[in-house]
Amino acid sequence: MKTFFDCIACFVRQSLDAVRMTTPDEAIHERLLREVLRFLAEMDMRQSPPAMAKRIHRLIREMTGQSDPYRDVKERFNRLAMDIYPELEARVGRSANPLDTAVRLAIAGNVIDSGVNHHLRDEQVHEAIDHALDAPFEADLAAFEKATSSAKDILYLADNAGEIVFDRLLIEQLLAEKITVAVKGSPIINDATMEDAEATGMTELVEVIDNGSDAPGTILEDCSDAFRRRFDKADMVIAKGQGNYETLSEVDKDIFFILKAKCPVIARDLGCAVGSLVLQQSGETG
Amino acid sequence: MKTFFDCIACFVRQSLDAVRMTTPDEAIHERLLREVLRFLAEMDMRQSPPAMAKRIHRLIREMTGQSDPYRDVKERFNRLAMDIYPELEARVGRSANPLDTAVRLAIAGNVIDSGVNHHLRDEQVHEAIDHALDAPFEADLAAFEKATSSAKDILYLADNAGEIVFDRLLIEQLLAEKITVAVKGSPIINDATMEDAEATGMTELVEVIDNGSDAPGTILEDCSDAFRRRFDKADMVIAKGQGNYETLSEVDKDIFFILKAKCPVIARDLGCAVGSLVLQQSGETG
Repeated sequence: MKTFFDCIACFVRQSLDAVRMTTPDEAIHERLLREVLRFLAEMDMRQSPPAMAKRIHRLIREMTGQSDPYRDVKERFNRLAMDIYPELEARVGRSANPLDTAVRLAIAGNVIDSGVNHHLRDEQVHEAIDHALDAPFEADLAAFEKATSSAKDILYLADNAGEIVFDRLLIEQLLAEKITVAVKGSPIINDATMEDAEATGMTELVEVIDNGSDAPGTILEDCSDAFRRRFDKADMVIAKGQGNYETLSEVDKDIFFILKAKCPVIARDLGCAVGSLVLQQSGETG
Repeated sequence: MKTFFDCIACFVRQSLDAVRMTTPDEAIHERLLREVLRFLAEMDMRQSPPAMAKRIHRLIREMTGQSDPYRDVKERFNRLAMDIYPELEARVGRSANPLDTAVRLAIAGNVIDSGVNHHLRDEQVHEAIDHALDAPFEADLAAFEKATSSAKDILYLADNAGEIVFDRLLIEQLLAEKITVAVKGSPIINDATMEDAEATGMTELVEVIDNGSDAPGTILEDCSDAFRRRFDKADMVIAKGQGNYETLSEVDKDIFFILKAKCPVIARDLGCAVGSLVLQQSGETG
């Protein structure tokens, strides 16, 4: 998905949120903002939003000298998710349709997105869980189930820290031995890296690799050769979150996108309302 | 009030809203956006938000060749307000405290602000009226009433088209002969100009002057000499709306600001919640 004009105001807001988190120094906030505005004024709008965000967050890391500004945020949400995990697991276990419940909860976890909502409160995570369990969900779950059964090699592209714990619920519904989970190669916003996969026990459950990139999505040409080979070899890809949708929606591959549509631009592209639960196969029109 | 960093994303959003209204040509949208981003990257942040908005909307008018892009919007809200005016007037008439009701309704009219909400629907105006009549309102109305009684020369700075009809309700509670209403010198967003004052009957009620400026507020150094003399001479100023607050809150003059706090930056500056009804005398701290 290309960057829409509507994304630009959001980049500016996101930059300010991010730099404020790293330092209270207003002179740095101003320098960063001016730098981001200059960058946006000249940018190539055919690129996807994560390609833009990658550049902006590199600027922030360089300007503040902090290599992982969201580390605390990531740890906070990993802990929160681990705390409620046993309850969610029990909920899936007693569901009449465990796969449906697990997919819904994996989508609920996608609310933990510091790019979209920098000020997420714990109770909003709980609200997202309640909403996901109740909301209409028009996905073709049968097609998803069939694809997971027949696939021999599933690549699961994780999105954010904290959210990755919710992904475990879904991964446990599938055959662990055919799944590889991919995290980001280095810190970008609150996206999960290997550190988060280890902290949340994902590495004990399935093979986890990193994609070699610091984009908040999956820009294939930006990923490592090893990751790209793994991507090519997989006969099914499960891609979590908006960033992966934005970067992979036009890639020719059998991909199931699982996300909560959190912004109007994505919702319009998907043909759904903001807040909708989405499980969509690549090539489907919204 | 200076421009806060938080205002910048809002300027970008506002620019896009405005240029989209003037033309469906995406090449012009992109050119305007890039130009606005370049301007914002180099701007002097000590200026008030209306000083920035003035520059941005001049760019839009130049780029699209439309001297008054919001003309239709202004006419639409003048008509809407004129249609409900008799009902509101009756409401003030039968109120136990007509001044309180008139001030509340004048604040309700301040919701008609295309800079803040470009997509305002008619029902949102009706909701704002219901809200204003019911909401807590902690203003020192007695001080306001006393000031209007003792003042000999009141300058009433109008804000937007449509809203100006709501201002009539308040002006009718005061002595018409001591009031002068000021509108903008030329079109800027949906701010009222002389055309709106005439269309809504304001010119038949009181003297109406224009301020000679195209800023969405009152930047004194940008106004005509005639207006500045009128401003200096007035012993009381009633200033409607966010733009007038942003440009006059630090001016040494007895000013009563009447507005609805529609954005978080203004609300923080005033020390109130977003959505609050505000009647505040200059020099008071929020």
